[in-house]
Amino acid sequence: SSCYKPMVVKMGRDQSYWASIESEIEAHLKKVISIRPPESVFEPMHYLTFTTPKSTAPALCVAACELVGGERAQAMAAASAIHLMHVATYTHQHMHGFGPKPGPAIDHKFGPNIELLTGDGIMSFAIVLLAKAMSPARENSDKILRVITEVTRAVGSQGLLEGQFRAIEWSQSGNGDEEMLEYVCKKKEGEIHACGAACGAILGDGSDEEVESLRNYGLYVGTIQGMINGVGRNNKNKRMEELRILAMKELQIRFKGKKVSPIASLIEESFVPPSQCDLL
Amino acid sequence: SSCYKPMVVKMGRDQSYWASIESEIEAHLKKVISIRPPESVFEPMHYLTFTTPKSTAPALCVAACELVGGERAQAMAAASAIHLMHVATYTHQHMHGFGPKPGPAIDHKFGPNIELLTGDGIMSFAIVLLAKAMSPARENSDKILRVITEVTRAVGSQGLLEGQFRAIEWSQSGNGDEEMLEYVCKKKEGEIHACGAACGAILGDGSDEEVESLRNYGLYVGTIQGMINGVGRNNKNKRMEELRILAMKELQIRFKGKKVSPIASLIEESFVPPSQCDLL
Repeated sequence: SSCYKPMVVKMGRDQSYWASIESEIEAHLKKVISIRPPESVFEPMHYLTFTTPKSTAPALCVAACELVGGERAQAMAAASAIHLMHVATYTHQHMHGFGPKPGPAIDHKFGPNIELLTGDGIMSFAIVLLAKAMSPARENSDKILRVITEVTRAVGSQGLLEGQFRAIEWSQSGNGDEEMLEYVCKKKEGEIHACGAACGAILGDGSDEEVESLRNYGLYVGTIQGMINGVGRNNKNKRMEELRILAMKELQIRFKGKKVSPIASLIEESFVPPSQCDLL
Repeated sequence: SSCYKPMVVKMGRDQSYWASIESEIEAHLKKVISIRPPESVFEPMHYLTFTTPKSTAPALCVAACELVGGERAQAMAAASAIHLMHVATYTHQHMHGFGPKPGPAIDHKFGPNIELLTGDGIMSFAIVLLAKAMSPARENSDKILRVITEVTRAVGSQGLLEGQFRAIEWSQSGNGDEEMLEYVCKKKEGEIHACGAACGAILGDGSDEEVESLRNYGLYVGTIQGMINGVGRNNKNKRMEELRILAMKELQIRFKGKKVSPIASLIEESFVPPSQCDLL
């Protein structure tokens, strides 16, 4: 069994930090995705948006924005779009009749045909949401375009999509190659977290160096997440610890003297073993 | 049987106009979609891009750009992105095991799982392509963002996606409601053609009025296309003629004294009946 919840840490204060971000993203999504005509389209879109197990990538986007000195509001559209992209790809990946799935079995409220089309619709809605984040004065167009490129790249042929293809190859090969498994986690979970962190830094007006450090941090964090959620978890502790140290270094070197503890709390404490997570 | 080829007109000269546009779009796509690592991703992406029956929406984008005084090159990225969006949605709609499909049976080179993932990848690739069309000096960011919004809206919950849902409802109701059928064609084919024409006008620096007239023209043209390609074709001739007249009016009123004959040739001549088209 797997755990799709955001990573659980022991410190109450940091727990509440992530919980407050999650609830702000949720509130923003509730505002933009209402059930309206055509209901046949928006009802499944709404349902999938709010029932799909969450990725930590959207929250990381907001935390990265705060770390570089930005306001949460600046990252909200991007965080929402990243959640929607995650929902769309998760929905397609877990469609009924498409082979064995990682994670707990899903209660499919809609048939595969509706899930297929709705996933497509959610994907285009995510991009519309980003494009609409252009300020009326249009002075942030370049930033928005950068973010659109980041988000579409992260789920595309060099990112999540490649991870999904490699995962198929990996499961067919049946040899349990450890390196390939890490590569799959890096592509499937790492890239979208890297994208989240980078977009947050871009929108919070971080420097190019800050954007790249946070991108690296996100890549490590997401890869670790993938290894926690995925198969072959038990013999991975040593490698996960190495990745955790690399991730912390990115923060310590680039953000000396800054308040890194909130964003670092995503991986700071010893992980709660997945067996102790509530299953969704 | 249906005909997915671009509409055939009798005049040799205008035929060659559309053929030259089509070949330029194809050349541009060949440049941007090469088979490169990861091959498992790019091979099906390449295959589907060049074997999916074409929509006339991309060519209309280029023609609209020319009509408002722009260069073909300005519309090439958008035309390619619109083709890719069409390919992605067409691929998903025709996936094996997802119910009866309009049009000729497809030779599926890849299984539904690969088609599903590749469709997603093509969709994100289309957006990356548009975002990359930003000029180095970044003075066209606003235009690019407008086009990204147009394209994602056209395939989204108020456009193509709604048409797909309505088509499912329509086929389930079984009452052959004529008005609903036209609405389905308007959403499924009309919106993407409206988007193509509007984007071409935006990129060719047309005025707001020109953009809206070409959007209307595209909506009529696409709706007619949908009615030609779709079911219940034979009792539709009268209504199609009405739509054709409305479409021509959009051009005649807005573009007085301009060279509208190339773009008008899409619907100018009497249609060649679909039975005379080569089936793909």
